[in-house]
Amino acid sequence: MKPSGEDQAAPAAGPWEECFQAAVQLALRAGQIIRKALTEEKRVSTKTSAADLVTETDHLVEDLIISELRERFPSHRFIAEEAAASGAKCVLTHSPTWIIDPIDGTCNFVHRFPTVAVSIGFAVRQELEFGVIYHCTEERLYTGRRGRGAFCNGQRLRVSGETDLSKALVLTEIGPKRDPATLKLFLSNMERLLHAKAHGVRVIGSSTLALCHLASGAADAYYQFGLHCWDLAAATVIIREAGGIVIDTSGGPLDLMACRVVAASTREMAMLIAQALQTINYGRDDEK
Amino acid sequence: MKPSGEDQAAPAAGPWEECFQAAVQLALRAGQIIRKALTEEKRVSTKTSAADLVTETDHLVEDLIISELRERFPSHRFIAEEAAASGAKCVLTHSPTWIIDPIDGTCNFVHRFPTVAVSIGFAVRQELEFGVIYHCTEERLYTGRRGRGAFCNGQRLRVSGETDLSKALVLTEIGPKRDPATLKLFLSNMERLLHAKAHGVRVIGSSTLALCHLASGAADAYYQFGLHCWDLAAATVIIREAGGIVIDTSGGPLDLMACRVVAASTREMAMLIAQALQTINYGRDDEK
Repeated sequence: MKPSGEDQAAPAAGPWEECFQAAVQLALRAGQIIRKALTEEKRVSTKTSAADLVTETDHLVEDLIISELRERFPSHRFIAEEAAASGAKCVLTHSPTWIIDPIDGTCNFVHRFPTVAVSIGFAVRQELEFGVIYHCTEERLYTGRRGRGAFCNGQRLRVSGETDLSKALVLTEIGPKRDPATLKLFLSNMERLLHAKAHGVRVIGSSTLALCHLASGAADAYYQFGLHCWDLAAATVIIREAGGIVIDTSGGPLDLMACRVVAASTREMAMLIAQALQTINYGRDDEK
Repeated sequence: MKPSGEDQAAPAAGPWEECFQAAVQLALRAGQIIRKALTEEKRVSTKTSAADLVTETDHLVEDLIISELRERFPSHRFIAEEAAASGAKCVLTHSPTWIIDPIDGTCNFVHRFPTVAVSIGFAVRQELEFGVIYHCTEERLYTGRRGRGAFCNGQRLRVSGETDLSKALVLTEIGPKRDPATLKLFLSNMERLLHAKAHGVRVIGSSTLALCHLASGAADAYYQFGLHCWDLAAATVIIREAGGIVIDTSGGPLDLMACRVVAASTREMAMLIAQALQTINYGRDDEK
């Protein structure tokens, strides 16, 4: 099924309707570019580690999205993955702000592993208003708007409602740091959840798509250290609008810039996961 | 795209053509049943551990496939996941033998995590002749016939050809045993590959579909302890026909009944993975 903006069950237009529609159209256009690029040879560069990759397509897609949005909404601000990697500051002010990951799952993209997404979030007065995530190869468009529900290709999303960790499917990602101490902590956290008899742990290589699985009820919890605000912004709206919980790994409220998160179908599940985890320090997006 | 037997680029019919076509048609029918079941409530039982699940649909699909095949090919033998769980012996004789996993990724199926497959392999004189794997939710039909190539929905499959572990995307699965000692070994193996600077490790919850990703070039290696002959039979033909390697974790030839495997895009890669791994003992399928 080819998604389009029109497929969405759209309540009455709100103040950010034009922005939302622009995000949907740009996510679909970006997805086309990414799908085409998946059939071509890629030039790959590394960023912080051998696992932290960037391609020409990341830059191309980010430039496309930002230049179009800047033209339409010249007063808005932007936080985006590749701009941040080039030294742009990630500060969330009260201004309307777009938070963009042009290709979430770049390592998957490089390998043509078909789990790759475009993620566009939008915040106003530091509050997330909507999120749009497009699964490029499966052509699934996930959207969430504050107070108006979450959808995938027009179908309403609901989390599973699971509260019992011993019946849970849990998702995580390894994160970009691969030094021995960080890997030990990453594996120890996975061990703790498996000891707690979680049904399984999945690692699919895309934080945003993992979070979309949670929103759709296909998984019960997600945690990660080392993800960024652009991995999380759009998905957070979608999960919350699907009835789920997104918090800090300390158990406190989500801090979008803290590079860590627990998301779950219920608060009980989120707290069980948060309590099980050892912290991995990745610093903050707004202090880099 | 809806796959069908006719989509396959089919060379001249061989001696097992009728069996191959029957496998394709049954995999597609089973896939329909599984897709429908994904929308319904499920009654779930546990087998060896909390992570080792079985549903009514596993039994229903296995019974459908075996009863149809038995009627058409009354002299053939069968090795199948749920029959084995009920005590049927898994012995590969020289007779034509069907090796069947009705739902690979049962834990995913239970959670409606959309990575679920039907796997049908066929061996004669202990040699694998063909494999048919159907990704139920994405409607991708993978096939491989000895000497005739591997295909996905009619498109020829080729492994990546990668030889360098530090450029590899590696797939694995946790396996059903979750006692502390087994988990330690599982995590230690993952740590060794990440120390070797593999780009990433993915855990998607379906051995057969992970092996299909390898066959299609979307990943470079796969290893697992604790998988069964029905997880491996069909995929082995597909990988070999896509140019890949399937061996024992010792580095020696594949032993289909040994509950362990390394598969890779090249022999160099397979040997690097095999050398990195510590053995996890799961016994043998033919001694249970």
